[in-house]
Amino acid sequence: MTGHGQAWPLTLADYAELARARLGPAVWDFVEGGAGAERTLAANVAAFEHVRLRPRVLTGLGLPHTKTEILGRVWDAPIGIAPMAYHTLAHPEGEVATARAGAPLVVSTFAGRTFEDIAAAASAPLWLQVYCFRDRTTTRRLVERAEAAGFEALVLTADAPRLGRRVRDLRNGFLLPSGVAPANLTGTGFSSPGGHAAAEFDAALDWSVVAWLRSISSLPVLVKGVLTASDAVLAREAGAGGVVVSNHGGRQLDRAPATFDVLPEIAAALGGGCAVLLDGGVRRGADVLACLALGADAVLLGRPVLHGLAAGGSDGVAGVLGIVTDELTEAMLLTGVPAPRDAGPALLTTASPAAAP
Amino acid sequence: MTGHGQAWPLTLADYAELARARLGPAVWDFVEGGAGAERTLAANVAAFEHVRLRPRVLTGLGLPHTKTEILGRVWDAPIGIAPMAYHTLAHPEGEVATARAGAPLVVSTFAGRTFEDIAAAASAPLWLQVYCFRDRTTTRRLVERAEAAGFEALVLTADAPRLGRRVRDLRNGFLLPSGVAPANLTGTGFSSPGGHAAAEFDAALDWSVVAWLRSISSLPVLVKGVLTASDAVLAREAGAGGVVVSNHGGRQLDRAPATFDVLPEIAAALGGGCAVLLDGGVRRGADVLACLALGADAVLLGRPVLHGLAAGGSDGVAGVLGIVTDELTEAMLLTGVPAPRDAGPALLTTASPAAAP
Amino acid sequence: MTGHGQAWPLTLADYAELARARLGPAVWDFVEGGAGAERTLAANVAAFEHVRLRPRVLTGLGLPHTKTEILGRVWDAPIGIAPMAYHTLAHPEGEVATARAGAPLVVSTFAGRTFEDIAAAASAPLWLQVYCFRDRTTTRRLVERAEAAGFEALVLTADAPRLGRRVRDLRNGFLLPSGVAPANLTGTGFSSPGGHAAAEFDAALDWSVVAWLRSISSLPVLVKGVLTASDAVLAREAGAGGVVVSNHGGRQLDRAPATFDVLPEIAAALGGGCAVLLDGGVRRGADVLACLALGADAVLLGRPVLHGLAAGGSDGVAGVLGIVTDELTEAMLLTGVPAPRDAGPALLTTASPAAAP
Amino acid sequence: MTGHGQAWPLTLADYAELARARLGPAVWDFVEGGAGAERTLAANVAAFEHVRLRPRVLTGLGLPHTKTEILGRVWDAPIGIAPMAYHTLAHPEGEVATARAGAPLVVSTFAGRTFEDIAAAASAPLWLQVYCFRDRTTTRRLVERAEAAGFEALVLTADAPRLGRRVRDLRNGFLLPSGVAPANLTGTGFSSPGGHAAAEFDAALDWSVVAWLRSISSLPVLVKGVLTASDAVLAREAGAGGVVVSNHGGRQLDRAPATFDVLPEIAAALGGGCAVLLDGGVRRGADVLACLALGADAVLLGRPVLHGLAAGGSDGVAGVLGIVTDELTEAMLLTGVPAPRDAGPALLTTASPAAAP
Repeated sequence: MTGHGQAWPLTLADYAELARARLGPAVWDFVEGGAGAERTLAANVAAFEHVRLRPRVLTGLGLPHTKTEILGRVWDAPIGIAPMAYHTLAHPEGEVATARAGAPLVVSTFAGRTFEDIAAAASAPLWLQVYCFRDRTTTRRLVERAEAAGFEALVLTADAPRLGRRVRDLRNGFLLPSGVAPANLTGTGFSSPGGHAAAEFDAALDWSVVAWLRSISSLPVLVKGVLTASDAVLAREAGAGGVVVSNHGGRQLDRAPATFDVLPEIAAALGGGCAVLLDGGVRRGADVLACLALGADAVLLGRPVLHGLAAGGSDGVAGVLGIVTDELTEAMLLTGVPAPRDAGPALLTTASPAAAP
Repeated sequence: MTGHGQAWPLTLADYAELARARLGPAVWDFVEGGAGAERTLAANVAAFEHVRLRPRVLTGLGLPHTKTEILGRVWDAPIGIAPMAYHTLAHPEGEVATARAGAPLVVSTFAGRTFEDIAAAASAPLWLQVYCFRDRTTTRRLVERAEAAGFEALVLTADAPRLGRRVRDLRNGFLLPSGVAPANLTGTGFSSPGGHAAAEFDAALDWSVVAWLRSISSLPVLVKGVLTASDAVLAREAGAGGVVVSNHGGRQLDRAPATFDVLPEIAAALGGGCAVLLDGGVRRGADVLACLALGADAVLLGRPVLHGLAAGGSDGVAGVLGIVTDELTEAMLLTGVPAPRDAGPALLTTASPAAAP
Repeated sequence: MTGHGQAWPLTLADYAELARARLGPAVWDFVEGGAGAERTLAANVAAFEHVRLRPRVLTGLGLPHTKTEILGRVWDAPIGIAPMAYHTLAHPEGEVATARAGAPLVVSTFAGRTFEDIAAAASAPLWLQVYCFRDRTTTRRLVERAEAAGFEALVLTADAPRLGRRVRDLRNGFLLPSGVAPANLTGTGFSSPGGHAAAEFDAALDWSVVAWLRSISSLPVLVKGVLTASDAVLAREAGAGGVVVSNHGGRQLDRAPATFDVLPEIAAALGGGCAVLLDGGVRRGADVLACLALGADAVLLGRPVLHGLAAGGSDGVAGVLGIVTDELTEAMLLTGVPAPRDAGPALLTTASPAAAP
Repeated sequence: MTGHGQAWPLTLADYAELARARLGPAVWDFVEGGAGAERTLAANVAAFEHVRLRPRVLTGLGLPHTKTEILGRVWDAPIGIAPMAYHTLAHPEGEVATARAGAPLVVSTFAGRTFEDIAAAASAPLWLQVYCFRDRTTTRRLVERAEAAGFEALVLTADAPRLGRRVRDLRNGFLLPSGVAPANLTGTGFSSPGGHAAAEFDAALDWSVVAWLRSISSLPVLVKGVLTASDAVLAREAGAGGVVVSNHGGRQLDRAPATFDVLPEIAAALGGGCAVLLDGGVRRGADVLACLALGADAVLLGRPVLHGLAAGGSDGVAGVLGIVTDELTEAMLLTGVPAPRDAGPALLTTASPAAAP
């Protein structure tokens, strides 16, 4: 009567389930966990639940395209990969497998594979996520090495003057598994991410760091962790070419607002003069379209990419990105949006209170 | 002391329970499922939960009547049957049994029984639901055949340039059971509804299709899938005689708004010059009255009709419709509404937040 | 270390638990149930959950008093007993035991004990709840008999042109247990409350019935079932001395608003020229105070009184009333309200959304 | 691969779990319970769930400090210990152990240890919580004894003209365990806290009691239990040096608003001329910062301190306070607040409805 379902994994939740089965519990907690009571972690996802998109009919559009220009480069879709430490926790190939999936990738300072190896596998833009250490020389060397490897932008993590209190990791006494280490840093003490951060992160960084980064590199600088209009304006004034609306995946200040909730005020403050990206809670193509509608140029996917990587290496990453991109295409088709830049706030309406889960 | 309850099934939920027991799991999923995470599917029902109707007392009305005129024909109640493919999935008699129950029926392009057989069993108006295929000849033949069989209107499905991503069906690898096939179409490839749609549906339809339908038929055309005031106005301007406020039962764009939530803006935009019907989430007579109060001329019931059909054939359909119609009569009596056209927005008040489930 | 708890039952929930254990399931369902999906039944209770009362300190009041004047009579507390059929379902002594507990009591047309027996046991005002039957002679005889027995007011049930669809009773095929019958009516057919109502209730009653009641009796008439300002005004214009804001305990129109939610509009429309009572969902002294604050002169308790009666006869009723009255006194003391008439809307504030359960 | 978690207890919930295991069920209920249906108890905690703090980045602040001045004394952090009876219920050392943890402490009239012993152990300010008994001589002696022992302020409990109806204690028939008694009162009848209160508390206290307290002592007086702007103004006019926004931990009027919800109106009414403290529901450093942002000078922690005391004596108390203070420091760092006095309402934003749990 009916056939057998063979297309599994079909959803991002399927990939998460596969990943959870493959990763040890402490690694899973390190990847999934947030700070404090994980309210902001949950809020990021929940913020999208009230989104309602207004479908349009008989638009005559045919198939929309998802290409979009970010800092002068065309992305296949407005969907990149958020910076996350140690993809080697999820798969032995680590960031090399991730990059091979073909999406724009923000490589972490704590990448488990070398910038050069990653660059060799990549076909889409690579950006470097920068933690600005107390020891600026270390930071400078990282930037120079990434730029030399062909990376195209710097993404300064601005929201971590110290690491947030991540209870799961404290409870697990989490240490990196042997064999997982930063491939682009020298030194020791990395096995305890929280301990390393307490020792090396600079709690007193200010906006002058943007100028400093621009002085040591020709790459554009984006500031990641911006959650207020005020800071968005300060970022632009400091010389940033873009901001990433982010609460560090709910891993820094528990009770920070969901990123989607603050996107409008930031987009309005910048007025288009600066690239606006967002990460946190994006799980569906409709989420992506909602972000575009409220002023984001693109979004970055985080944990789901590691789920795909754990579940199936490079193919798993491509599978995750493919689902979200296909959903985005469908949502654009059904709302009459021919291209990402055509999305605007009129796409959105409010769910009735009862309609949200 | 007390008698034995023998009047089961008593509620639409009873019918759904019976249907679930009789249909195979994959067929059940095909009938019940929605697109994506099924948020819109749930929202359709949930949107009615906040409705509160204002009872009136001592009105002197006696029993109200539910007759209402739609496109020049009098319906016994403002309740018809929404288009759904393959009633033969629920009962061997399929649409013939459904039609025999006596309510206005929108017959699907993918009906499991011939238009002629359905017409022979029907005592209330029949309308044809039209998917406009890439191959317009197929569509024209369907329309002509339905019109010849006495169908009275065309309902153009406008919200399906491609079929939504229905995860349950993908997971089940759903194929139509043998013996279930479109009775009014020739050709092959129908066993996989999603696959057929991808091959044959026209993703680039525009509003000119309304004029084309009117050119090949003398029947009035309603546009189904309208969820915005803008599209309602475009429908009227394109020559439609009515719209069906619908999100395809939550099967197309997940995150589309609940139909009840957008009804007011559509009714206001049309201002009475066009028939307004609604489907999606109607489960109670009070839901029907709320729709009438906000400007609908009638509603269409979907899944509950298939439940009744699976549970008891034509009698089951009549049972389902009877419950809802009786509830509507009771709600009209208790709110002092003598006839459907007398319902207005003053009937409604808002639940306190705590009062909603 | 600690003593043993012996004061059980301590709360209305304790009494309900006791009652549920003593009554058969079908009787329990008849008492507890509501119409349709029981949304309005639930809403009545839920509407109070958002109430927040503003405590005041160091008021110097000492103990407040709860006496209040209703239609010229002083009640010990602004708490009476709502009309309910057949207290003999809960306890063999029925309404006689209820009356003996000492609170004002609205006796049902379908009381299980004679008006004379009830009056002999009562120390507080008795009112008669009137269903106006198609056979007006029956109604007239009831009124005359009650007035002769010393009843002091008539409470016209205006919201039941027919009985609501009570699914629990239909499912149970509920019939009155043998020995339970209306003590003040002659005739047959009472064993099926729904069937009797369908045969005898007058679906076309209008406001002239108030004048008719006044013409056959010298007692003041209150109209019960008022849920809109418009009907409150019509009631006063028709000659009513008061209204009871009621949705029939959620047993008539499912989706009627919670009584507490519509109290303000009704109190505002009447402006004090008419007694305003409320039933539905009152379970705590703080609920009573909230009703007083929004313009009610008194409330009527329904199901909890039957729970007390089932749990412990007259003492159980007194126990239930005692808990609520004591809670009311405490709430008045802690909010600085010396007497019921001093309660006003400034007592209330809104719960934050998160604070409601 | 990963280490073993050894830092347990890590959170206040961990401490509560430990405490629950060590205390008998009736003592646990006495500590944890609230009045009535415990709505206000729950509301206190829930009110903070909607708080969202606006993070700021690259502020250049470095580590913030938490020192704050309250009534002329510098506290290490804006976090003191709320008055609670009988710390000896939680640990044999009682208030002496609590005081030794080093935070400002409001000692209850019903302390289980003498004021002198407590003072000998304390390194931070001690305040006396005053119940003003009918027998003023008793109260005067308490005040004089506390002042002589070096206590620095009086905190008048103004919200208990009688004790709220605490159902758990009534159900348990709660009596103090042997060995637990007020160390600073003579007399009998203390074993039943509710019974004692009914006998000795003065239900008719008015604002003149503030002047009386000032006449018998040179210490500043704070009024605890203020929940309205009106009473805050009256407190100041009566000569109070501060108010504690409190609903007695949800133990008095069930349906009183959450303290956090009424803080803004009270802070606005006082305009800075009076110390404003708050207790009720504070469980996280972010809660503390939110209170500071809305005008509190400091908060008082209640039940969590007893949890810490039960779990680990003085070290447990210090552990609890340390977690909250560390979280506060982190929240200040991540929101760019260099010192408590710099917190203002701009720190706060609203959670989207879906984002709250």
